[in-house]
Amino acid sequence: MSAASAGPVTEIVEAAGVQVSVLLARIEDRLAELSGGAGPDLSDHATRTIAAGGKRLRPLLVVLAAGERAARRAAQAPGVPGLVRAGVAVELVHSATLVHDDVLDMASLRRGKPTVFALGGRAAATATGDLLFARAFSELVATGSPEQIRALSDASSALAQGELLQRADAWDAGVPVERYLLRCELKTAALFQAACELGALEAGADPAPLGAFGRLIGIAFQILDDVLDVSGPAERTGKHRGTDLLDGTVTLPFILARQADPSLAAVDPRLITKPAQAAQICDGIAATGALEEARSRAHALVAQAVDGLPAGLPPGQRAVLEKVAAGVVERYS
Amino acid sequence: MSAASAGPVTEIVEAAGVQVSVLLARIEDRLAELSGGAGPDLSDHATRTIAAGGKRLRPLLVVLAAGERAARRAAQAPGVPGLVRAGVAVELVHSATLVHDDVLDMASLRRGKPTVFALGGRAAATATGDLLFARAFSELVATGSPEQIRALSDASSALAQGELLQRADAWDAGVPVERYLLRCELKTAALFQAACELGALEAGADPAPLGAFGRLIGIAFQILDDVLDVSGPAERTGKHRGTDLLDGTVTLPFILARQADPSLAAVDPRLITKPAQAAQICDGIAATGALEEARSRAHALVAQAVDGLPAGLPPGQRAVLEKVAAGVVERYS
Repeated sequence: MSAASAGPVTEIVEAAGVQVSVLLARIEDRLAELSGGAGPDLSDHATRTIAAGGKRLRPLLVVLAAGERAARRAAQAPGVPGLVRAGVAVELVHSATLVHDDVLDMASLRRGKPTVFALGGRAAATATGDLLFARAFSELVATGSPEQIRALSDASSALAQGELLQRADAWDAGVPVERYLLRCELKTAALFQAACELGALEAGADPAPLGAFGRLIGIAFQILDDVLDVSGPAERTGKHRGTDLLDGTVTLPFILARQADPSLAAVDPRLITKPAQAAQICDGIAATGALEEARSRAHALVAQAVDGLPAGLPPGQRAVLEKVAAGVVERYS
Repeated sequence: MSAASAGPVTEIVEAAGVQVSVLLARIEDRLAELSGGAGPDLSDHATRTIAAGGKRLRPLLVVLAAGERAARRAAQAPGVPGLVRAGVAVELVHSATLVHDDVLDMASLRRGKPTVFALGGRAAATATGDLLFARAFSELVATGSPEQIRALSDASSALAQGELLQRADAWDAGVPVERYLLRCELKTAALFQAACELGALEAGADPAPLGAFGRLIGIAFQILDDVLDVSGPAERTGKHRGTDLLDGTVTLPFILARQADPSLAAVDPRLITKPAQAAQICDGIAATGALEEARSRAHALVAQAVDGLPAGLPPGQRAVLEKVAAGVVERYS
């Protein structure tokens, strides 16, 4: 279960109108601004973390959940409008958890760039993560919305729980599907949900239905991530196949494949130590049809997410949210 | 530079009036309540962390900075009054950083009890710290005061910077006094300052003068901590003498002693590896008079803190804040 890039984000942004690209650019500027000013070392690490990027899917969700009218207003507003702050805060929390994850995984690369852990060591990476967390909340404060802070704080708690659950479950091939889904919910979907809630709140809308949408596509997003880790191809995902297997992270494709193939059920995850071995097991998983089944579960979640969108949503906003939802499952990296 | 207990907190609480003990008890209950509800493992770790205690000096500062009238009102208020939330939030941030520090130090004991790191490992401790951080902000949200959230967030950023600075400076015997003081400011004083600001804000008072008071006694508190690490006695501080020397943390007593004694200036901190050796260097530091000089600097900071208290402060509140300030430097554990 590792981070992967979003679907055709650029396409979605283009379809969504100029106010969305303006806001994403303003979010980018603000992220760069906020990662400085914390003393030379820490600022360096924070800036590098933020600059290493990712597709900014979570800020995009914030903006799209707010809808066209709120986005257009924010795009033209002076200073730092609430929608920019909300997008920034969500991305800062996401980045904070990635930096902490890298410490725990002793990961040397993320998105092809050296991690803070690799460059600065455990202390620097722990402090950088803590700083990004703290900055996220101070950024959100200025929106003046306690509900937004609560939503982000709840998501942060969920992320911490999810991280721990994943590690508690490591190497346990017998983990049930429900437990796997709970993990997706905590580790990924909670922040997707918060992103949508923040956007809705900025627009003065009810956050619940859009939050539910975010939660469902978040679970689907994580399932796809886990499918791509098995299916590759490595040149698209930027990682070798089977990194989850090598990390001891038992994900949906493996769980389903074990039910279908007794020889896979007999595999002890602790004994998967070499990339070639992992690749072979990936082939075994693919042969059972587990990847199709996992993809189809993700599709079902996305369909449920789209069905649950509020009836009164402006057609333009609905169309672009549907595009995002489809992008979550129709992706190959 | 390690955490130590506050001065005669019980005495101060008794002198401050019943509303203060009531509020501290309510803060304690609320801390216990909040550390649950995060899944069995994480709740366990969080609860244990909170229960391991400490003297709750920071929540005490919150309550005392608010003054008698606001404290009395909060003590009698139903639900969870803002002053309780503020005290809880400050203690949660403090606990979060301790848990993360323990991971980085690979510390097995804190306050005589096994750390989360020792019981649950790095992942559990990192997640527990993150959870406590997130909970701190969601707790504070309900006060409805953006200034409070900003104050706590700024302090959290400072803590992260201070932590990193301390590690960057590790084993560097040539670190100047100013740099040491900056470290105290970031790692300790910023949260003392925030505690006082939160209290003042809850009382509707100007947060600046009380914040300045908190900052100054915070620096003094850290200096005393560092003095006690050299002076012992171990049976009062609960630690061996010279743990800072063994950790590579170069503190004020050592910096001053090196200026006075060329044989100490010649010591390479990296070569201090055994407790007996550290104890011997502690004796050498004490022989230079550096402990008295450090104590007298701390006294001067406390005097400055007291001088800066607003003229209009009610005499009862002034008296108890002076008692806290004195307790910070007149302590032996």
